[in-house]
Amino acid sequence: MTLENGLSLKDEVQRMRAEVATQGERVRKLKKDGAVKAAIDTEVSTLSDLKAKLQQKEKQLEESTPLYTRCREPLENLVKRRLFVIPGFEIYGGVAGLFDFGPPGCALKAEVEALWRRHFVLHEDMLEVSGTCLTPEVVLKTSGHVDRFTDLMVKDTVTGECYRADKILEEQIEAKQKAGLPPDEHDRLEKLKVQADALSSEEMHQAFLDLGIKSPDGNGFSTPFPFNLMFKTSIGPKGDLVGYLRPETAQGIFVNFRRLLEFNGGKMPFAAAQLGLGFRNEIAPRSGLLRVREFQMGEIEHFVHPDHKEHPKFGAVKDMKLPLFPRDRQLGDGKVVMDMTLEHAVQTKVINNETLAYFLARTYLFLTKCGIQHVGMRFRQHLETEMAHYACDCWDCEIETSYGWVECVGHADRSAYDLSHHTKASKVDLVAQHKFDAPRDIEYVKFTPNRPKLGQAFKQDQAAVIEALEEKPDQERLHIQQQLDASGTYELKLCTGQSFTITKEMAKFEKAVKRVAVEAYVPAVIEPSFGIGRIIYCILEHTFRSRGIQDQEERCFLSLPPVIAPIKCSVLPISANTQFDDLINQLKEQLTYHGVSSQVDSTSASIGRRYARTDELGIPFGITVDFQSVKDSTVTLRERDSMKQIRVPAIEIPELVHNMVAGRTTWDKARDKYPEFIAQEA
Amino acid sequence: MTLENGLSLKDEVQRMRAEVATQGERVRKLKKDGAVKAAIDTEVSTLSDLKAKLQQKEKQLEESTPLYTRCREPLENLVKRRLFVIPGFEIYGGVAGLFDFGPPGCALKAEVEALWRRHFVLHEDMLEVSGTCLTPEVVLKTSGHVDRFTDLMVKDTVTGECYRADKILEEQIEAKQKAGLPPDEHDRLEKLKVQADALSSEEMHQAFLDLGIKSPDGNGFSTPFPFNLMFKTSIGPKGDLVGYLRPETAQGIFVNFRRLLEFNGGKMPFAAAQLGLGFRNEIAPRSGLLRVREFQMGEIEHFVHPDHKEHPKFGAVKDMKLPLFPRDRQLGDGKVVMDMTLEHAVQTKVINNETLAYFLARTYLFLTKCGIQHVGMRFRQHLETEMAHYACDCWDCEIETSYGWVECVGHADRSAYDLSHHTKASKVDLVAQHKFDAPRDIEYVKFTPNRPKLGQAFKQDQAAVIEALEEKPDQERLHIQQQLDASGTYELKLCTGQSFTITKEMAKFEKAVKRVAVEAYVPAVIEPSFGIGRIIYCILEHTFRSRGIQDQEERCFLSLPPVIAPIKCSVLPISANTQFDDLINQLKEQLTYHGVSSQVDSTSASIGRRYARTDELGIPFGITVDFQSVKDSTVTLRERDSMKQIRVPAIEIPELVHNMVAGRTTWDKARDKYPEFIAQEA
Repeated sequence: MTLENGLSLKDEVQRMRAEVATQGERVRKLKKDGAVKAAIDTEVSTLSDLKAKLQQKEKQLEESTPLYTRCREPLENLVKRRLFVIPGFEIYGGVAGLFDFGPPGCALKAEVEALWRRHFVLHEDMLEVSGTCLTPEVVLKTSGHVDRFTDLMVKDTVTGECYRADKILEEQIEAKQKAGLPPDEHDRLEKLKVQADALSSEEMHQAFLDLGIKSPDGNGFSTPFPFNLMFKTSIGPKGDLVGYLRPETAQGIFVNFRRLLEFNGGKMPFAAAQLGLGFRNEIAPRSGLLRVREFQMGEIEHFVHPDHKEHPKFGAVKDMKLPLFPRDRQLGDGKVVMDMTLEHAVQTKVINNETLAYFLARTYLFLTKCGIQHVGMRFRQHLETEMAHYACDCWDCEIETSYGWVECVGHADRSAYDLSHHTKASKVDLVAQHKFDAPRDIEYVKFTPNRPKLGQAFKQDQAAVIEALEEKPDQERLHIQQQLDASGTYELKLCTGQSFTITKEMAKFEKAVKRVAVEAYVPAVIEPSFGIGRIIYCILEHTFRSRGIQDQEERCFLSLPPVIAPIKCSVLPISANTQFDDLINQLKEQLTYHGVSSQVDSTSASIGRRYARTDELGIPFGITVDFQSVKDSTVTLRERDSMKQIRVPAIEIPELVHNMVAGRTTWDKARDKYPEFIAQEA
Repeated sequence: MTLENGLSLKDEVQRMRAEVATQGERVRKLKKDGAVKAAIDTEVSTLSDLKAKLQQKEKQLEESTPLYTRCREPLENLVKRRLFVIPGFEIYGGVAGLFDFGPPGCALKAEVEALWRRHFVLHEDMLEVSGTCLTPEVVLKTSGHVDRFTDLMVKDTVTGECYRADKILEEQIEAKQKAGLPPDEHDRLEKLKVQADALSSEEMHQAFLDLGIKSPDGNGFSTPFPFNLMFKTSIGPKGDLVGYLRPETAQGIFVNFRRLLEFNGGKMPFAAAQLGLGFRNEIAPRSGLLRVREFQMGEIEHFVHPDHKEHPKFGAVKDMKLPLFPRDRQLGDGKVVMDMTLEHAVQTKVINNETLAYFLARTYLFLTKCGIQHVGMRFRQHLETEMAHYACDCWDCEIETSYGWVECVGHADRSAYDLSHHTKASKVDLVAQHKFDAPRDIEYVKFTPNRPKLGQAFKQDQAAVIEALEEKPDQERLHIQQQLDASGTYELKLCTGQSFTITKEMAKFEKAVKRVAVEAYVPAVIEPSFGIGRIIYCILEHTFRSRGIQDQEERCFLSLPPVIAPIKCSVLPISANTQFDDLINQLKEQLTYHGVSSQVDSTSASIGRRYARTDELGIPFGITVDFQSVKDSTVTLRERDSMKQIRVPAIEIPELVHNMVAGRTTWDKARDKYPEFIAQEA
């Protein structure tokens, strides 16, 4: 939704709120300065006008936004009532951040996973693996999670209640912005908000002081401190082997890299994939299904030569336009998501490489198949400050919901971080090899450290500095030399956060030649990582529809795409009469034979009420068996979204539904073939 | 394998070993007593004869046993080489009891789970749910796991190494038996061995003392003590909410019972099912995949009225003969598994009720579909002493492997244990209701406690005794009264292990009548519980086959049923020539369209070697594209087990393979339809 002046309606409302705030300030100042009444009255009247216009615009904004941004209450009602989701351990008062999937939720999850498997694993011939959740400490120490997988926490100094510092900060800023702020202050806090989850303890502490933030109970807060989000346990009877529940499934792939490469006949590039649970001991889980402590993930690790990140199938997606939200647009004024072709994005280096871009496209297609709307999807590049410790570029696919934009799929170029670190820690080489037909001379960039100078400058850090420089790939080595030549110095940043100034005298990088038969290299990893549970919640919001009020009740339904619908077809006899039993049993059996899940509802509720039930479950097709059916073996077939019905010979139904679910034919084609059936649903 | 004298070959070997031991004893005694040489020589000669016969019989036994009992080494070799399984965190030296599934293992697991879902969940319209692994302590305290989910552990007093006491005891007994024991002693120890996992700490301690058991390092052992097998962790940031990783998925269903019943429209009986992970912190995991610390389970909780355990579909399975191994045969001499019809088993109360029997049949059919052989399957009833704390009857489906008989599926009648305890602990009624059309007078058995007498006799235990008596169902109440009338007393056993003698004066049970509109009752639960990982290992052993030695290499393969094979079809060009590419791509695409997973192998290895590879992966069908194919668009289709090939138009292949995988047609029918193709594989 973009207005003529180029501002989105949302931004326009934001601007008007600031205007109201400034005007309010002006009135207060006049009053304080004891201005004449007439002058004050004029300004007050202007303020009233502005407020009225704002109110109108706010209403317009609400009505113009997609349904999913304002469906939370009726949707959560439906989701709980129809048992898509059950709060975990409800009878014991529940545990925050733990949810169970009831029958339709469980089936929906299974269908989304099956689609994920077909769309990614089978389509790309990926190697699917399944590792354990229990992970020994050494693995997660190596990956950096033991030291850095933390959120900043603050404690209410009186009640001891724990909070996530960044969430508290975000909320406080939003509250201040909503109450109205001068434009400068608004923008300053907006920038702070966007970077909230990347602040250091000290920066966070300063922000809390600056804004005078109090706890929800009005008490003071402790200084923010890092809290590790992994669940810790002990493996074995002796208590000496510390283990964690994996915070991501990726490490289980990295540690098996050598075996997987071997299984793949040594061929590169290749991808491995894993569907499985991840665990994060969230400090204060809220936002329903969006921030939970145990969640299903789907992760892909695409291993590739660090200098060859082209993708053979990029041509098939290069013309696709994706809603991109690059880094440099996020902190500026005119935050705008742009639809951009992937070819252009890669050419202009907005996206780092073809492989990363290829996966963004595949993710977009997957989510579209799941029913996520284009308007509520964007690919947001990570800010430098927020990038995970391992990543060299990262794009989140965010989906808009009633909770705002939610990260659902991360696409990180993790470079060689993980494999190099596991190689070092395990002493097992995790490398791929490229064998030449005959030994050949290859160019490389030789690094010659000047150890005395380095030692003098960096003392005990010398070894770390040399190691970091040794790890730089050829291209970057050349780049460093260029910088050294140009400015005399180069700033080396370590993953520990330390920074070192390298001077021209300390190191030399120059092109050289060596004779080799085999090139061994540590592959880079490009990782699309899916939060299946979050995606499911977004699917529910994006497919939520209302038919309006009927009989004093809002008739809502889920417009789930047939391919992921938990149940594909309902079978409803027009009345609870045993004469329908044979036909129903035959239908059910034939549907099962064709792999179509179905649900018979022969309760005595009216047919309309029964359809309302199946609509709430998102069942796309419904068969009604009526008295005519017994005579001529035809039944009606109803499509959920249009509520249109056609009359079809019972024997043809199972294959027809199967083909519509599999996407081999469409409802429109079926309507062309079979006569329409007119009936009232009430 | 049964000999004419009614003894199985195995028992015969056992008997002969005892004979050799007795004869050896006789020789030693003669020597010790200084008997004349001639007498000694005679007995020594008899001993030699006996030993020779034993050796011969032992060889016969080995050769007559199914392949799976002696395939461990080549199978484990295949399983690791083909990456069905990878030891967890191998590059870090591994963690005992943790395994990952590599690509074929992961696909096999997915197929077994999909079959489980179709065979149980869809076939019986069960409500599938998916709960969390993280479980708050209160739930597992209520279920009894916090207090009683333990194994007895012993520690080497010198090295501190930990062992499972029952496994050590079993091994020591087996070693002694193998070395030869007099029949009486053999039988006494056999009984001890069978009950090893049900001994109390004191009994175990006594057994260790009696047998003089030392640790494998020759040191003493600590006294056995219970070790809780749950992984403990802490949920949330404060550290005050203790949680465990669930040891079974069942509790996640019980706590949701009320919601599930509501979802089911209040209708009873019904079943809920769950596929998910379970965790047990095994003391000393060995036996490869059979005893692991994290494992996939499939559990079904069938809720039923405690007095109506008939099953509507029992008629469909009543004539099936299952290999039953009831309790009373396990401790006696002639341990024999009997094939018995389920109707007979239920009528004679060998199996407690129809529902339990029905599930045994469904399990048998499921495992048969998975390729488990009848000869290596038995249903063993739990001994009274080994029954889980909650169970009132329990049958394990055990599968024979190279490790012996392995429990793979438990079938427990958990009675109302779980629902009653969760009701008490959560104060939420977990009951089902039966509404009468009109209020009616119903007979029941009224319990009148004599509180003064009970108080006098049991003091502070009075309340527990009354509660226990109140919980008895009507039928048992009548039974108690009969016993009181007959003998004057009744022995009341509590689940705590305490026992109380109730006398005639203390309690009265009599038939009475009350007027009710609704009958509320706590349902009983019948639970089939599947260890998916164990079943997968058993499938691998049971489908392992050898074609004998070819080119100095044993050609082994997995005869996996097509329905669960990880990949359904291979596509092999006769040579690495680009002219085959089009046809191969078309085949691959059409196979995918028909939902058939496939693998193209266009490496330069010989066709025979490539088939050997696909055989090791258990791929049931193989398509070969040759030069003729390019001319007439026909290809050959090979079946793995028979290695026979037929010539089929390429366009008909995908549907043909799909139908064979789905069980809609067979290889034999395909052979009738298409001409045979004769070719050498080498």
